[in-house]
Amino acid sequence: MNELHFRALPGIPLVEPGADLAALHLEAAGRAGLELRGGVLVVCQKIISKAEGRLVDLNDVEPSDEAREIAADHEKDPRHMQVVLNETRRIVRRGGGVLICETHHGFVCANAGVDASNTPADDVVILLPVDPDASARALRTALLERGAGPLAVVVSDTFGRPWREGLVDTALGSAGIAPIEDLRGQGDLRGRELVVTTPATVDALAAGAGLLMGKAAGTPSVWVEGVRLEGDGSVASDLLRDPSTDLFR
Amino acid sequence: MNELHFRALPGIPLVEPGADLAALHLEAAGRAGLELRGGVLVVCQKIISKAEGRLVDLNDVEPSDEAREIAADHEKDPRHMQVVLNETRRIVRRGGGVLICETHHGFVCANAGVDASNTPADDVVILLPVDPDASARALRTALLERGAGPLAVVVSDTFGRPWREGLVDTALGSAGIAPIEDLRGQGDLRGRELVVTTPATVDALAAGAGLLMGKAAGTPSVWVEGVRLEGDGSVASDLLRDPSTDLFR
Repeated sequence: MNELHFRALPGIPLVEPGADLAALHLEAAGRAGLELRGGVLVVCQKIISKAEGRLVDLNDVEPSDEAREIAADHEKDPRHMQVVLNETRRIVRRGGGVLICETHHGFVCANAGVDASNTPADDVVILLPVDPDASARALRTALLERGAGPLAVVVSDTFGRPWREGLVDTALGSAGIAPIEDLRGQGDLRGRELVVTTPATVDALAAGAGLLMGKAAGTPSVWVEGVRLEGDGSVASDLLRDPSTDLFR
Repeated sequence: MNELHFRALPGIPLVEPGADLAALHLEAAGRAGLELRGGVLVVCQKIISKAEGRLVDLNDVEPSDEAREIAADHEKDPRHMQVVLNETRRIVRRGGGVLICETHHGFVCANAGVDASNTPADDVVILLPVDPDASARALRTALLERGAGPLAVVVSDTFGRPWREGLVDTALGSAGIAPIEDLRGQGDLRGRELVVTTPATVDALAAGAGLLMGKAAGTPSVWVEGVRLEGDGSVASDLLRDPSTDLFR
């Protein structure tokens, strides 16, 4: 692997619930003169969530006392905070107007991934997909069925990190690619065993693709060539650390 | 920005203290048929550290009682642990054979970034550069002086993350590029203000480049084209979060 090429897929419109994401991507690729063969399609979770109808109209939400209390503290809409609490397994940290949540999937992120930007209307928020690995698998299957491929799909979202400012895209779901490359047991350049070298391939792909996905730019998908497409049956959610070995619970 | 192209720079040899990194990179680029113009050079910290002589011979290290105690607990060399402690401002977490440290720079990483793989000899460990932003600046200046550029330099290392398995490359130092892109105040696709969209560009570049840098592959440097090269005077260390606003201290 000596080169990687990331290409934004332009012209994917605002996605409606029920949208045919495979068709939208094949059309966008066609317009860009690209064949979706031998690469990884990195897709921002937001269009997946929209296509899957993971939208909540805040006018239908009755905030609890806890949601009202958090909202007052954070200068947020209490109905938005109620949706965040509904998506949350555990509040990890709270302070400075930021609510870091562990979602029911196990992702640790701000506001449980509930997003109020780029939504179809002012009072609508977008949830993360129910099962991002399943979303990736479904899109991959649909693309393969229409003659595209070989390819992998990564579903990404933009997360903050402890200790560091700024956001980096991270893989929520994947299909058709090993999420982590296990180099343990291989030698280093001097032949000694590498002990802890396990690159999180899908996260690095998401991060690189994120450079082309600026939220304001309307580019929810990026095509990456140059990556080894060897699935091993494992998926992005396997990157979620076992709580029993997690020093940062 | 519609495309990004990451190319590994092959054939950079094992680097000795005092090595002329600018010359090594210009030679490697020449062999690859690349001109180092209009891109970002992402360089693994390890060759920077080697060139800067940031090597410690463990035979010169007398471990303290604390280092011996940690080493016994982690099945490590007590001399190695002493070097880790020397590089550490604060032990953040300890357990399961892993020592997560805050370095004197402020990076939070395993073993304070002290590395025992790909070292010149069995009893030698490699420290992080003293000032990775200064290292990036020095390499950039040396390349510009020899006629390369415009270009930016990012110095990267491979870090673990809380909550997620696997490692992703992160920016320790940078020169000639804004480390973070501040989209706050810009509108989203529907014209509403984006509140927290601040992509950590240099970290995403490091992560993508890391896909081509497999430790065993002997590829310490990657050239990236397609990135906007607008420095704003800030550097990668500005991504280190102010402890007073850090929820994960």
